[in-house]
Amino acid sequence: MGAGAGGVSTEAARSHPLLRVFSVERDPQRRNYLLENRRRFGLLNLEVIAGEAPEALHSLPAPDRIFIGGSGGRLAEILEFCTSLEFPGPLVLTLVSLENLSCAEKILSRQGFDLEVAQISVFRSRRLSGHTLLSPENPVFVLRAERRVARKGDEG
Amino acid sequence: MGAGAGGVSTEAARSHPLLRVFSVERDPQRRNYLLENRRRFGLLNLEVIAGEAPEALHSLPAPDRIFIGGSGGRLAEILEFCTSLEFPGPLVLTLVSLENLSCAEKILSRQGFDLEVAQISVFRSRRLSGHTLLSPENPVFVLRAERRVARKGDEG
Amino acid sequence: MGAGAGGVSTEAARSHPLLRVFSVERDPQRRNYLLENRRRFGLLNLEVIAGEAPEALHSLPAPDRIFIGGSGGRLAEILEFCTSLEFPGPLVLTLVSLENLSCAEKILSRQGFDLEVAQISVFRSRRLSGHTLLSPENPVFVLRAERRVARKGDEG
Amino acid sequence: MGAGAGGVSTEAARSHPLLRVFSVERDPQRRNYLLENRRRFGLLNLEVIAGEAPEALHSLPAPDRIFIGGSGGRLAEILEFCTSLEFPGPLVLTLVSLENLSCAEKILSRQGFDLEVAQISVFRSRRLSGHTLLSPENPVFVLRAERRVARKGDEG
Repeated sequence: MGAGAGGVSTEAARSHPLLRVFSVERDPQRRNYLLENRRRFGLLNLEVIAGEAPEALHSLPAPDRIFIGGSGGRLAEILEFCTSLEFPGPLVLTLVSLENLSCAEKILSRQGFDLEVAQISVFRSRRLSGHTLLSPENPVFVLRAERRVARKGDEG
Repeated sequence: MGAGAGGVSTEAARSHPLLRVFSVERDPQRRNYLLENRRRFGLLNLEVIAGEAPEALHSLPAPDRIFIGGSGGRLAEILEFCTSLEFPGPLVLTLVSLENLSCAEKILSRQGFDLEVAQISVFRSRRLSGHTLLSPENPVFVLRAERRVARKGDEG
Repeated sequence: MGAGAGGVSTEAARSHPLLRVFSVERDPQRRNYLLENRRRFGLLNLEVIAGEAPEALHSLPAPDRIFIGGSGGRLAEILEFCTSLEFPGPLVLTLVSLENLSCAEKILSRQGFDLEVAQISVFRSRRLSGHTLLSPENPVFVLRAERRVARKGDEG
Repeated sequence: MGAGAGGVSTEAARSHPLLRVFSVERDPQRRNYLLENRRRFGLLNLEVIAGEAPEALHSLPAPDRIFIGGSGGRLAEILEFCTSLEFPGPLVLTLVSLENLSCAEKILSRQGFDLEVAQISVFRSRRLSGHTLLSPENPVFVLRAERRVARKGDEG
């Protein structure tokens, strides 16, 4: 959910043709980008869902993996709903604010998930009067959560 | 070339089944990883080439795109050879040393390529007595070069 | 407090000879470094306090500014004590764990402080077979807190 | 030289009252900031030099240490001049462009200096609708050069 222009969901759908990808996006313009990408790459396995998480998630089939690219200010509700589902794979979030990072860590730990956090920062070159400067982009936190119990079950 | 364990080449081969990927790697153990990944994902479009660049490149068909993940101390020679080829797409390199960055910029600029540089740094969480620390990884420079002349030709 | 080897406190004492600096450090070896620096630079305005915060703080005169370089696992207690004091200047903390960052933000916001956070990351060159690699150091969060009420009073 | 508003030179002059600091700055407005800081902190040991490096350096007494904060596009000339001087201490530069970094490394290595490079990047918090985002600043390279020969002499 929070699929944006679909960088993650179209990549997932392209690389794994047998995967069924549901992309929830509330913003009509971003949904148009998604649909354009879907058409352009012939991604019959990508479904674009209009609506807002967590409500829009109720009608979807049980997921295998969950990716949350944005939460529209409703991160806690979305995570409470997602962690109430049974799903084997990881839940991955990208976050930019310290409050959301801390909120996600708290909810996911309490719900029995193991967490890995990575902070990624990229500096891109910019030319200025014959010189190459490194211009920084906003750093992003990537949180990967995997259910502790589910993992034990796999091993047992 | 410098394919390593094949993170880039196996991803490329998987996402684009119609692409033919040639992976040059001089290290036997890394080649084994590559072959293992090839078998595991059924990548018939990935060919693993034993040998060292630039010599090992002479017998390959004309490329569409070039990715250089490592240069085994022979970056200048490799770039001189690659820039002598005609190929429409970008040449992408990953670099870790300031000397190689500067060397690549000089050769590619002189050979008529437009350059973009990005520096990527990742901090990964590490648990230490109940706390989450951000542990830094070595930053990587990614250089993307596109031929100025070739692009003009595309447009005209 | 958490003065360590005294990078911050000796610099403060040197640059501002009229300032009286109290340096609380529980570790005997680090205290020795502090005392050595004190002697070396003739810093009569630097007092080294043996003990652990927050207990060791009770006997100190009312501060003007507070710097917390380390908290020995007792950040919440230390911040509760410090925010109970009246002091005009900023409180500055350096932190490395996400939990401490989030804990400090919560306590200081609740106690009526305005916060600024900076994350500082340094890559240092390392020579490896004739090449200069950038080797990353652990990133540090610097938190600067200033009391909202005190500032309003200044303006009114 | 390239003293800017004098962050480095006023700090140096304040912390080390017995040091004589010469601050070369070609921009009149920045010189005014420097003079204001000089007056404000009573820094009798700070001299503000109007002019451009390297010309403005010819009339100065032999330095002990050199700090170059900016080079106004004339880095190579400035470094050629500075390295022609005899001075015991380190030469420190701050740089933002990859070309200047590479230029400084080349000249200083050739002139017999040992180099250390650090890249410093700072993310500062920014509040956006109740959230704390980390907003990146331009990364800076700090280069510290020390003469190889001079150091051997010290030891011998």
